Amino acid sequence: MKTYADIARHFSDIGALRQIDRHLRWDKSVTMPPQGIAQRAQELAVLNVQIHALLTAPELVAALPQIDGGSLGVWEQANLRLIREQVALAQGVPADLLARKLSQESKTEMLWRDARRENDFKRLAPELEKLFVLVREYAAARAAVLGCSAYDALMAHYLPGMTSAEVDVIFDDLAAFLPPMMQHTVARQTAPQPLDGHFDVARQQKAAEYVAQALGFELGVWGRLDVSAHPFSTGVGGDVRITTRYDENDFMSALQATAHEVGHGFYNRHVPVAWQDQPVGISSNMGMGVHESQSLGLEMQMARSRAYWDYMAPKLAAIFGGTTAGGWTGGNLYRHATRVRPGLIRIEADEVTYPLHIILRYRLEKALLSGDLPVRDLPGAWRDACRDLLGITPPDDANGCMQDIHWHGGMVGYFPAYAMGAVMAAQMTAAMKRDIPDMDARIGCGDLFCYTAWMRDHVQSFASLYSAAELIRRSTGADLSAAAFKQHLQERYGAA
Amino acid sequence: MKTYADIARHFSDIGALRQIDRHLRWDKSVTMPPQGIAQRAQELAVLNVQIHALLTAPELVAALPQIDGGSLGVWEQANLRLIREQVALAQGVPADLLARKLSQESKTEMLWRDARRENDFKRLAPELEKLFVLVREYAAARAAVLGCSAYDALMAHYLPGMTSAEVDVIFDDLAAFLPPMMQHTVARQTAPQPLDGHFDVARQQKAAEYVAQALGFELGVWGRLDVSAHPFSTGVGGDVRITTRYDENDFMSALQATAHEVGHGFYNRHVPVAWQDQPVGISSNMGMGVHESQSLGLEMQMARSRAYWDYMAPKLAAIFGGTTAGGWTGGNLYRHATRVRPGLIRIEADEVTYPLHIILRYRLEKALLSGDLPVRDLPGAWRDACRDLLGITPPDDANGCMQDIHWHGGMVGYFPAYAMGAVMAAQMTAAMKRDIPDMDARIGCGDLFCYTAWMRDHVQSFASLYSAAELIRRSTGADLSAAAFKQHLQERYGAA
Repeated sequence: MKTYADIARHFSDIGALRQIDRHLRWDKSVTMPPQGIAQRAQELAVLNVQIHALLTAPELVAALPQIDGGSLGVWEQANLRLIREQVALAQGVPADLLARKLSQESKTEMLWRDARRENDFKRLAPELEKLFVLVREYAAARAAVLGCSAYDALMAHYLPGMTSAEVDVIFDDLAAFLPPMMQHTVARQTAPQPLDGHFDVARQQKAAEYVAQALGFELGVWGRLDVSAHPFSTGVGGDVRITTRYDENDFMSALQATAHEVGHGFYNRHVPVAWQDQPVGISSNMGMGVHESQSLGLEMQMARSRAYWDYMAPKLAAIFGGTTAGGWTGGNLYRHATRVRPGLIRIEADEVTYPLHIILRYRLEKALLSGDLPVRDLPGAWRDACRDLLGITPPDDANGCMQDIHWHGGMVGYFPAYAMGAVMAAQMTAAMKRDIPDMDARIGCGDLFCYTAWMRDHVQSFASLYSAAELIRRSTGADLSAAAFKQHLQERYGAA
Repeated sequence: MKTYADIARHFSDIGALRQIDRHLRWDKSVTMPPQGIAQRAQELAVLNVQIHALLTAPELVAALPQIDGGSLGVWEQANLRLIREQVALAQGVPADLLARKLSQESKTEMLWRDARRENDFKRLAPELEKLFVLVREYAAARAAVLGCSAYDALMAHYLPGMTSAEVDVIFDDLAAFLPPMMQHTVARQTAPQPLDGHFDVARQQKAAEYVAQALGFELGVWGRLDVSAHPFSTGVGGDVRITTRYDENDFMSALQATAHEVGHGFYNRHVPVAWQDQPVGISSNMGMGVHESQSLGLEMQMARSRAYWDYMAPKLAAIFGGTTAGGWTGGNLYRHATRVRPGLIRIEADEVTYPLHIILRYRLEKALLSGDLPVRDLPGAWRDACRDLLGITPPDDANGCMQDIHWHGGMVGYFPAYAMGAVMAAQMTAAMKRDIPDMDARIGCGDLFCYTAWMRDHVQSFASLYSAAELIRRSTGADLSAAAFKQHLQERYGAA
């Protein structure tokens, strides 16, 4: 290995093995028979040892410092920067630490499933404490490579290039703005009319396929839509897969999850083909924050707009056997889609209260990581923060600090990406509306492509070429702030 | 790497990567969107380069000759023998030859699809000729490692440990026996009554799932049943997958394909868990011959028996909405399942004429490989052999020498395994009937488990521990011969 081209070829192999890794995880969640779990774990472990060996191959490590990136193109330079960081992290985080952390993650997560069901945080706490010890060790190893704080080194998985100081500015802004906005909206909104029709899974599936196709996600050509316990998206280029789930009591959740995952899917679809096996061409290297801007953009900005529901109402009424008199009007569906209610559960939250759930977790996980908040004191701290931010107090820990898998699976630093994604999506959509003044009219006529094409051309086709900050500046003409998100909420829900 | 245990650990990794390879091929045939084809090819290529690197790792090659197998258990010794052979073959067959052969295979196969549709063998011949040049080179490299003839070195993929001299004995026997048996059966069989009922895909799918479950193949636990253009089986242990296909004009083909693939699936299910990641525990290392004995055993011996159809008739009638008066009796379904007619197409053939299709191909591919039969003369040679063995002559090459993918995809030496599997299945089933004298009565009552359990205990649970010859001796008490197969046909179709 001597030249940049040699190194890129090596990373093309790594890219192929990583695609395989992602596919095996898709299969595990979607198609694998339950008894396959042990052998799949073994397959993933062996595959990832191979990937790690390629990332730390002596000939690669020897060649990297010799490469002069100065004469390369911008994509190649960005690729080289990501390659150098990935190799440094693979070298700097000991393999045995990764193995110990992974083992404790599995143990804690298994226990969490039982403890949550039995509402028994005390039983969970000692294992969660052990996991946080390892997470701290892991964060320190990453921080030494990245040259940042321990928390930021974890957050860099999901918001690479961002600091918690930058997140603080936006979250403090939202923590002041959202509670009055929430109270105002709850007080003035009118209850939607219940809908007639039939919501069996077969019809919901037909409707979800209709939504995906209407958004331009080509099922049976380069896309698939399946079912899994938690909706997700994976794959790239010619093979992009999304999932949803069906609740016979709430047809809208499957449709909005479909729109959300189509947003992720388009990002993976629209990275340049020539780069899709290189680090710079893998959209997830931008982190979950920018990725969520694409999913939340479609789900929250576009697919909760009045224009969208005006277009969708008759199409969906035909699928579900609903009538105009039975509530199938654009206005009424829009009221269903934009209902605001403070609740205890993050994944059921509306777009006004959702960031408050995130801010709560962000503040607590920073304190847990630093040790300022001992694990045993988490339930009380959660109740206090929930009351302060949302005005309600969970009756138990199952509906409080044990509701999410993240911490119990070792994912610390993940949460802020969700809310930052919503903020980015609002800023991007505002820029889009300046570029396309008649956007709502076009969406109302079914030209949903105007939204997805703008995102493709201004965001997705750049894959991981820029930092998030640079991408946002280039696509929206301004630095990231909460202003557009706040304005969006004011326009949709009325000024507080 | 110093000890047998070190080597076994290394092969456990190879085993996991091979499982991944098989899974990716399943996905390609069953779930992958069509545009994923190019990136999947890249994934498979990279994965197989990794596997090849592990098979020829210098520390493995250095350690292998130092291992004294004498003190190991029988499974370990058999495993070591397979490991040594795999490493020798990986070293002895040049990687660039494999790559050139693979490339010519893709090219020829692509052209074959067009040429078959257009019935234009002349267009195909030059590429097929080029492919045979590479197949000869490949066969010679394998023959040098295995110490056998070129043809036997290819056949060893599918019938390891067997020579074409042994195959000749059985095929010459069948080539004399079957044509009069076929004529006799065609003359005396009575046409079955056509069936009433509805054969839409949804009902066929329900029926295929019923057949799989009735045979003990646990869908949704460790098994899956999907659809693909050509039925196949893959996976191991806790994750075994089979496919079938549905023809609205012939419901029986989907059900018999399901029984067939369940037979393959059980072999993969029943290998000892402790060995399933080692060469000795991978059932396909016994070759397709023994594997086909398991699929044809279920499909032809058990699932074409009168007792089986007596049990199945009312169950399937209920699924398809059929009536006794409309032909849904055990006797009539049995007549449908055992109809004999000489035809041009191998994959549509009954169990009497099927081996004649194979003998035809076996004789021609030996002559093609040696060069005695030039590729350009294949159509004429095929027509002559077809007339001699089956008494009919194909009207064109699409229904003659271009009907099967095998040669055009570089698979030479494969065909005999199909007929040898049928012969083995008959000998195993005869032994089973001696062990379980009331087997037919039990099957008639729905105890299909008596058949599958015997195969599990006498064949499948030994995985690849023995040679095929030894396995057959141990499971049936005799050397392999065509005697049981001939007797089976005489009992089912009457003595010729």
